[in-house]
Amino acid sequence: MNIVANVYRGGIVESSHLGHVAVVDAAGNLLYSYGDPHRLTFARSAMKPLQTIPVVETGTADQFVFEDADLSLCCASHSGELRHRTRAMGILERAGKGEELLQCGTHVPRDEESYRQLILDGRELTPIYSNCSGKHSGMIATAVHMGEDPATYHLESHPVQQRILEVIADIMCYPKEQIATAIDGCGVPVHQLPLVNIAYGFARMAKPETIGNDTRRAAVQRVTEAMMAAPEMVGGKKRYCTDLMNAFEGRLFGKAGAEAVYCIGDKATGLGIAIKIEDGSPRATYAVMNEVLRQLGIGTGGALDDAALSSHTNPDVLNMSGQRVGKIEAQFLLQKVNEKIIIVKN
Amino acid sequence: MNIVANVYRGGIVESSHLGHVAVVDAAGNLLYSYGDPHRLTFARSAMKPLQTIPVVETGTADQFVFEDADLSLCCASHSGELRHRTRAMGILERAGKGEELLQCGTHVPRDEESYRQLILDGRELTPIYSNCSGKHSGMIATAVHMGEDPATYHLESHPVQQRILEVIADIMCYPKEQIATAIDGCGVPVHQLPLVNIAYGFARMAKPETIGNDTRRAAVQRVTEAMMAAPEMVGGKKRYCTDLMNAFEGRLFGKAGAEAVYCIGDKATGLGIAIKIEDGSPRATYAVMNEVLRQLGIGTGGALDDAALSSHTNPDVLNMSGQRVGKIEAQFLLQKVNEKIIIVKN
Repeated sequence: MNIVANVYRGGIVESSHLGHVAVVDAAGNLLYSYGDPHRLTFARSAMKPLQTIPVVETGTADQFVFEDADLSLCCASHSGELRHRTRAMGILERAGKGEELLQCGTHVPRDEESYRQLILDGRELTPIYSNCSGKHSGMIATAVHMGEDPATYHLESHPVQQRILEVIADIMCYPKEQIATAIDGCGVPVHQLPLVNIAYGFARMAKPETIGNDTRRAAVQRVTEAMMAAPEMVGGKKRYCTDLMNAFEGRLFGKAGAEAVYCIGDKATGLGIAIKIEDGSPRATYAVMNEVLRQLGIGTGGALDDAALSSHTNPDVLNMSGQRVGKIEAQFLLQKVNEKIIIVKN
Repeated sequence: MNIVANVYRGGIVESSHLGHVAVVDAAGNLLYSYGDPHRLTFARSAMKPLQTIPVVETGTADQFVFEDADLSLCCASHSGELRHRTRAMGILERAGKGEELLQCGTHVPRDEESYRQLILDGRELTPIYSNCSGKHSGMIATAVHMGEDPATYHLESHPVQQRILEVIADIMCYPKEQIATAIDGCGVPVHQLPLVNIAYGFARMAKPETIGNDTRRAAVQRVTEAMMAAPEMVGGKKRYCTDLMNAFEGRLFGKAGAEAVYCIGDKATGLGIAIKIEDGSPRATYAVMNEVLRQLGIGTGGALDDAALSSHTNPDVLNMSGQRVGKIEAQFLLQKVNEKIIIVKN
């Protein structure tokens, strides 16, 4: 049983999470694994850095003067804070469009204060509050820049989505025709690939010299550097993605995906890491990723001890009065594998 | 792998839940199982019907003129609707106490309209909004009735909690000294027992003639009948507990527990059913329980087809625009066991 984390109440295991880990280098070697590293996985929002590459490649980012923070917001599952909403609106405005084009739907934002203020103002939730509004704004801007229909950018057949599919297939080195798709929580296509390929894609983004095409290599570099330059845009207050990239100061870029996915690219080692909790429950994801980093020696005795980041390591389970009544503990041992698993095309 | 439910995105399994099922009769026979029916489990709020038994046994319910709806609310994980808050306040008032004694802590209630109104009124969350406020009000009333300190009713050493432990050990036929405890989300003790014993307790409550003690038998009968007479108090609008008991009209009583537990007693067959999803994620729990009922032939072609109840069978996964993008599907086959597993003391 590939348990990755146990949830304790008192000293007793109350619930357990199974999971899968793949650690791959930029040459296509699977170095460490746990569970099934070949598990076919929808990386969900962990794909956002790849979905943002066409925003740069097409020239959209240049035309609409995207700052690092704008590109970082395109890669975000943000908390809906004022700074996130303002920046998403800014992208739409520079593209000459409005919020009504956003197809991401609505949900209560993570930022409680923003939600409270909305209710007090007698306003209703709108798509700009969606954690995906940055990504969608970038997609709309791209459609405008390319002279494509900005109203149907979310459909799989639209060139905006077709470009993303091509980027994923290329960087993750997986045949386009073998990538199964479905619809994400925000209405755009999601792509299913083996976990090893997802990790491999993050390794290549961490070592962009492995990407042959000059335009693509430059775009990858600009997007990942934007994430690390403006980590507060990728998540928000007390969010793992933000805390991770703040702590590692330009070394790592990381992104969470729904249904308990997390992906990291490490520029120092050139490793890509992808994890998936089998049951899709997000609560153990960050504790598991911090434990993977610890076992790989990435940031141990340094960035990994950062106060904000280490608050995600084996977090407390609190009761409704704020009393500590248990904990979530990552418990697994990565296995050394060292097998060549990917035919590198470039 | 004891998978009980798969979560589909499009036609593809995105995540999977493991789980355990025990179906036991009131004579102590394990009739059907899945996964590990002996799994040591905190039943959490599924224990509320048992925690309510002392409210009746001690004479508290009579002294403070509890109606069925009051006892049902003591068994509740309610949504914090006005009717729930009003009734919990009523119990406290008749016991001569106020909300400030509630030790359950606070959380955002499930009933969105109640929360919205609270913010609009400029008020803060208070413990009466907690899904456990009915149970805690019953515990305070019991302490008052018994002349015990009503301020420390939540502590394990308090007679209120000691009486509950004795009831659980007796009805579930498990040695008191072997029951491990921890602290629940609402601050009171929780009790760890094998899933088979939890199911057995519900079977005995469904067939109270198996309970030797006259006072206890009458209390069990009154509590379970109160739940079935006022199902809207146990949960609320669009809640499984409420929908289940409304559909089965006095045949079944059922209660959910945190970390994905569900327990049912069936008065028609005398069966007790207990399920636990291994990862503690609640989203598949009701689909799994409806599938257990279907395989046992309980309510098939009748109550199980009720519109509200069957909305919990293999529920849709929706995206943020309300579009159906997947489903949760219970997928397992109960195994016929038929082994005597419990030494019945009475």
